[in-house]
Amino acid sequence: MPQSFHPPQRTLLGPGPSDVSPRVLEAMARPTIGHLDPLFVEMMDEVKGMLQYAFRTQNALTLPVSAPGSAGMETAFVNLVEPGDTVIVCQNGVFGGRMKENVERCGATPVMVEDDWGKPIDPDKLEDALKAHPEARTVAFVQAETSTGAESDTRTLVEIAHRHDCLAIVDAVTALGGTPVEVDAWGIDAVYSGSQKCLSCTPGLSPVSFSDAAVERIRSRTHKVQSWFLDLNLVMGYWGKGAKRAYHHTAPINALYGLHESLVMLQEEGIENAWARHQRNHAALRDGLEAMGLSFVVEPEHRLPQLNAVRVPEGVDEAAVRSALLDDYSIEIGAGLGPLAGRIWRIGLMGHASNARNVYMLLGALENILADQGHALEHGAALSAAHRAYAADDKDLKAAVNG
Amino acid sequence: MPQSFHPPQRTLLGPGPSDVSPRVLEAMARPTIGHLDPLFVEMMDEVKGMLQYAFRTQNALTLPVSAPGSAGMETAFVNLVEPGDTVIVCQNGVFGGRMKENVERCGATPVMVEDDWGKPIDPDKLEDALKAHPEARTVAFVQAETSTGAESDTRTLVEIAHRHDCLAIVDAVTALGGTPVEVDAWGIDAVYSGSQKCLSCTPGLSPVSFSDAAVERIRSRTHKVQSWFLDLNLVMGYWGKGAKRAYHHTAPINALYGLHESLVMLQEEGIENAWARHQRNHAALRDGLEAMGLSFVVEPEHRLPQLNAVRVPEGVDEAAVRSALLDDYSIEIGAGLGPLAGRIWRIGLMGHASNARNVYMLLGALENILADQGHALEHGAALSAAHRAYAADDKDLKAAVNG
Repeated sequence: MPQSFHPPQRTLLGPGPSDVSPRVLEAMARPTIGHLDPLFVEMMDEVKGMLQYAFRTQNALTLPVSAPGSAGMETAFVNLVEPGDTVIVCQNGVFGGRMKENVERCGATPVMVEDDWGKPIDPDKLEDALKAHPEARTVAFVQAETSTGAESDTRTLVEIAHRHDCLAIVDAVTALGGTPVEVDAWGIDAVYSGSQKCLSCTPGLSPVSFSDAAVERIRSRTHKVQSWFLDLNLVMGYWGKGAKRAYHHTAPINALYGLHESLVMLQEEGIENAWARHQRNHAALRDGLEAMGLSFVVEPEHRLPQLNAVRVPEGVDEAAVRSALLDDYSIEIGAGLGPLAGRIWRIGLMGHASNARNVYMLLGALENILADQGHALEHGAALSAAHRAYAADDKDLKAAVNG
Repeated sequence: MPQSFHPPQRTLLGPGPSDVSPRVLEAMARPTIGHLDPLFVEMMDEVKGMLQYAFRTQNALTLPVSAPGSAGMETAFVNLVEPGDTVIVCQNGVFGGRMKENVERCGATPVMVEDDWGKPIDPDKLEDALKAHPEARTVAFVQAETSTGAESDTRTLVEIAHRHDCLAIVDAVTALGGTPVEVDAWGIDAVYSGSQKCLSCTPGLSPVSFSDAAVERIRSRTHKVQSWFLDLNLVMGYWGKGAKRAYHHTAPINALYGLHESLVMLQEEGIENAWARHQRNHAALRDGLEAMGLSFVVEPEHRLPQLNAVRVPEGVDEAAVRSALLDDYSIEIGAGLGPLAGRIWRIGLMGHASNARNVYMLLGALENILADQGHALEHGAALSAAHRAYAADDKDLKAAVNG
């Protein structure tokens, strides 16, 4: 008969889930109350307000879907796309492919705009696709490709979509909290994220936000939303501010305690400070990895600070390195997906896990393991490089503070 | 700026969520590990095995959907129903109506078999509907109607469905763990439940199980499943035993720690003992409520022990009683839904919450509140009646043990 499960203490430096703060874990263990309890409803309003803060939006329809990020993606598509629609889907990694699946399953036609894995989406290609498909009503793309660590220019892509009278759906699963996602300033119509990346909460919830134009489209649909569970016309009845809450489904109470706590922590730090922290630790990790002779998949100007995709050096056993990290150091990093499987590692520094301690720990562990595998490197060079990066950043910070 | 949320300590005696054991809450707070971590994958296998135990099945396709019970319902419908199908839906409460919505959103035609709220489903009406609709491929019904507390005869209804070459979808959200759900012995083809009822876990997961005949239908579909997130062809790749785990979505790690712990507790107690405990506490509550002059919505032979729907006495303010229970005693009970709104209370004794302490506490509190509202009752009669019920049960138990 199975016994209680006691997981080991890992350091999660993969593509997510990322390390969860003890504050969030402790919040998850607070007593369960009812999903219609007046005190729970107050907490829901706070979660909505703090998600508006994280998404930089005033959108009334901002809430966490009661399921993981994939369900957040599906929420965007099933609510905004109708059978017979044309949807332009930009793909430069795994998650654009998943968007295509969503479009097809809505009975609509995806028009694919393809870019190489590891490159950002090319705005000119999107513009061409929209000119060729004036019937398109929706554009969809991934801001931060979790499979490659490449960031696309959301502001420009949304602007192009709007110029062609399309709504823009943006995947911000890995972006939110680690790099700017300016929902209102950039005019994003539908955005979804995940709780387990730069928000440092446990997996299982998907924050979403919809613009007024998106809400208008949802309200004026000619077909019912194909998913009852994800139909925002119904979900709004439960999450609508001030309104009497109509029972829709039973919210995942304790998971929401965790998300609430992680958002309190984000507000305490200040989201701009969180973005700066992700940049700072990325720079130190980058310098350390490069000092070890590793190279990045993505060009510097399109790199996500929270997700570092690096090439596996010639002669090194990709999977053996990950196993050694996990078994000997209890550190998790990610493998490559699709065409990058076996060729890259994905090293996340997301949310709570983005700190100097983890940068030094990973560099030290990786140096040992690569040396064992016969990869030529200068011992100590990676840690020194990271140390210099932090020192340079401190100097810049001091200079900025002192004017 | 919002602060950390500290919920009050409630006693949850409504239709769910029910009280969660401190063991489960503590498990939720254990360190998050990766969803592809070998140790996590081992834990997933244990969860599957323990769900087979709870569902009394050998079905290989037995797993928790990463979302609440409503998504479990949707999983059953979107995988088993194709556009153009006819589905017989039996309705005797809220959740049969939700099944109808699901069928319609799958592009299929629901044929409704209606019974009064509070009554079980009439097998003869199902038989008539199947005779009138030989094209039907699926029958769906709710074993334990959470809106009324009525239990239907699953064994008989499934047998009728099979006789007419239909697969049977059974809603066991409130049933599982509180009253027998014999998936294999009764031949159920698809069943779904919720973590937050008689399993005493937090809300957010939906255990499901599918028979070989159901899996065969899923594999031979002519249309893709309309939901990417709930497509069991894909989910099986992640949850399939022994097979290499293919990434589908990020599992809600800590929620699964909680479910694992609640299933360990169920095995420790033994599911037959859990059923008996629900009956025992129901009997004591029933005698106490009746001694207060309250009457049940459902006839004795169809009553669920875990969900007691009682009529609000003449002259008593339904909502004021619930508010007084919540505010003065921190006890939650449920209101009526649909045609029963304002006319009944729903008192749950589910899972961990099904115990004598809660029976006495609720009876005492309710007696005080009803007396304050001018309802005529004999003080102390309810507690005495409950006490006598427990004593009689103890005597029966001793007699049984002593042969």
